[in-house]
Amino acid sequence: MDSSFTRIKGGVGAPQGFHTSAVSCGIKNPASDRLDLALIHSTVPCSSAGTFTTNRVKAAPVRVSQSHLRKGDLRAIIANSGNANACTGVQGITDANAMCDGVAKPLGLKRSEIGVCSTGVIGLPMPMVRVEPKYGELVAGLGPKNGSDVAAAIITSDTRAKEVAISFDLGEHRVRIGGCVKGAGMISPSMATMLCFITTDANVPSECLRKAVLECVEESFNRITIDGDMSTNDTVLVLANGASGMPALRRNSGLCKQFRAGLHFVMLELAKAVVRDGERVTKFVTVKVEGARTYLDAKKVAEAVCKSALVKSSWNGGDPNWGRIIHAVGYSRARIREELVDISIGGKAACIGGLQADTPMDDLREAVAAPEFEIVISLNQGDAGYVMYSSDLSPEYIDFNRSEYAYWKQARKDGLV
Amino acid sequence: MDSSFTRIKGGVGAPQGFHTSAVSCGIKNPASDRLDLALIHSTVPCSSAGTFTTNRVKAAPVRVSQSHLRKGDLRAIIANSGNANACTGVQGITDANAMCDGVAKPLGLKRSEIGVCSTGVIGLPMPMVRVEPKYGELVAGLGPKNGSDVAAAIITSDTRAKEVAISFDLGEHRVRIGGCVKGAGMISPSMATMLCFITTDANVPSECLRKAVLECVEESFNRITIDGDMSTNDTVLVLANGASGMPALRRNSGLCKQFRAGLHFVMLELAKAVVRDGERVTKFVTVKVEGARTYLDAKKVAEAVCKSALVKSSWNGGDPNWGRIIHAVGYSRARIREELVDISIGGKAACIGGLQADTPMDDLREAVAAPEFEIVISLNQGDAGYVMYSSDLSPEYIDFNRSEYAYWKQARKDGLV
Repeated sequence: MDSSFTRIKGGVGAPQGFHTSAVSCGIKNPASDRLDLALIHSTVPCSSAGTFTTNRVKAAPVRVSQSHLRKGDLRAIIANSGNANACTGVQGITDANAMCDGVAKPLGLKRSEIGVCSTGVIGLPMPMVRVEPKYGELVAGLGPKNGSDVAAAIITSDTRAKEVAISFDLGEHRVRIGGCVKGAGMISPSMATMLCFITTDANVPSECLRKAVLECVEESFNRITIDGDMSTNDTVLVLANGASGMPALRRNSGLCKQFRAGLHFVMLELAKAVVRDGERVTKFVTVKVEGARTYLDAKKVAEAVCKSALVKSSWNGGDPNWGRIIHAVGYSRARIREELVDISIGGKAACIGGLQADTPMDDLREAVAAPEFEIVISLNQGDAGYVMYSSDLSPEYIDFNRSEYAYWKQARKDGLV
Repeated sequence: MDSSFTRIKGGVGAPQGFHTSAVSCGIKNPASDRLDLALIHSTVPCSSAGTFTTNRVKAAPVRVSQSHLRKGDLRAIIANSGNANACTGVQGITDANAMCDGVAKPLGLKRSEIGVCSTGVIGLPMPMVRVEPKYGELVAGLGPKNGSDVAAAIITSDTRAKEVAISFDLGEHRVRIGGCVKGAGMISPSMATMLCFITTDANVPSECLRKAVLECVEESFNRITIDGDMSTNDTVLVLANGASGMPALRRNSGLCKQFRAGLHFVMLELAKAVVRDGERVTKFVTVKVEGARTYLDAKKVAEAVCKSALVKSSWNGGDPNWGRIIHAVGYSRARIREELVDISIGGKAACIGGLQADTPMDDLREAVAAPEFEIVISLNQGDAGYVMYSSDLSPEYIDFNRSEYAYWKQARKDGLV
């Protein structure tokens, strides 16, 4: 961790001027009292930026939030878990708009100042009948809280809420960046199946914020993969309200770079937290590709290795199977030469020049037995590199994802299908 | 099945003039007496053609067979299971050449008339000390047998030997095509992790054979996927010896097309057999994409759906989860419009125009409960289509692939690592 950042508590509630709230609607299961509807609100105007799934099948809230982000600066975000509001057609758009309206009015905001996000099962209409009665309670609950209510309300198959916050000096002012994220399955580069909300009280003009968000997402959330499936709902939204009292950052200034470093730190922490909490994941694996001819070649190699079912199975089994790694390197479509490839696992040579290294197998097994380890793939053909953060694939992952039938049964009870 | 083809027994031994043999070397496990070294031999000169893995990491026998196929016409194939002879460097090439020499001399052939194939674990040297003493027994065992010895000797994680043979009239002559295949894991389009040998007594000149093989592989083996991993050893070798007595086929003639139809039938049967015998597979799923703007768009959609871990998990669970299918359609990078997409499962509408169809969920569950079913994805944007043959992904697949450590332990006993 860069020593200039201090970890603080409070997630998205940590920056000044941001209030949060969460309530329980029973969206997925009417009998449950877990939090499933969250609200983040800046008490003062904000600049905002975001990135969205590149899946051509986009959930209704993604379409609505994209449109709102273009129209003006967001000041609040409403988000639910339990239903993705994806593949829901015109009704889905109506419902996403209604969720914006439901909080815009009591907050005295325009609909276009609200971002809306949903996560959960695809293809079933939102049970609005259980959401609508809760807007009042949601808005009434707003306050300078610690943000953990939002982090808790947006998770689905995650095993834990994931949030981080830091404070650091930007020129003469102390600023804060806080974030939370949900995501555990359907996680792949080019946006994971996830929602991520980040708030900051730094004073960051929109253009500057947009550029920083794009760059930081590329180096964090676009570097992780759990199961290689890209979702219909992925969204990162960042709100900057300047409540720290600092003057506005100037584009390309040194302070702007410092802010970007803080944003990068928060996003990378959250991205890694997503992998560590991946569905039935037992290993966190950093895959570093070095010595590629081009950045794109390095990326292709990293993605092929991190997505290979056979490689991920071997990690699950604690097997330092470099043969499967090099086979994925080979089919990655990157320009590689087998006889130049070196692979190390946990700092120990597994493969040198395309051949088995003489490291004792037990040493390599020890490296893979750790819950977190690093694999370095040196192509020895150039200077380009790429890093990805991946996980194993477990029998329990498949078992966990075998059926979503329960959702349909509930939807039928609700008269939605 | 085209009524002009008659199924016959005998696999690669069915065509006239092909002899087969197989012996047990204990390549993977010295204590085992299962067949693991096979030989196919044409008693008369042949034309030959083949296709190989496009993985940039290529096993030594792939490199040697590619070279031999360019030099001249193969007349024999030696193949082993238990060790892939991949990532074995110069020693691997030496060993693959030695396997060719080992049978070339007693058969009175040149080294370049032998094709050589290996399948098994990657990265360990071939235990030649157990292979070399067996050449004599292997060649001595050659005879007009039923070919099932070859089919049995090449399998690894397969649960059964896979072979097919047909006879049909080509002009005034009856000809035969026989084939066998191995492959169960590391199966992906652009060649599966598999070996496939096909023999025919039709008289097919090399150029004509090469063209037919390329076309038929594209429509069979390149259409299947089990786990999305492309191997280092994939090989299809076809030998045509003309022993049926027919005159040589003329290029682009009607008879040439008839031969191609027969070859296509045999390859597609073998390709489907590979999927049905995929590692811990419980479902055989045909995915038909229709109405795409281009062939490439249709292919992208089919491949994304067939490779999605989440889609495959739902098939394993008997869950007719069209939401996961359309999410994979969306990230396939094909040009699709969500609101035009129809999806049917087992002939029943699951999704119409991007929205849930009103087919009762129990009807869809019934369709997915079958061991084999078809999914049709209609993009409604054009006339192009593509078909793939895929499987589910089971917890047992991951469990099965967690560790290959036993191989290393044996290799250490053998003094190879």
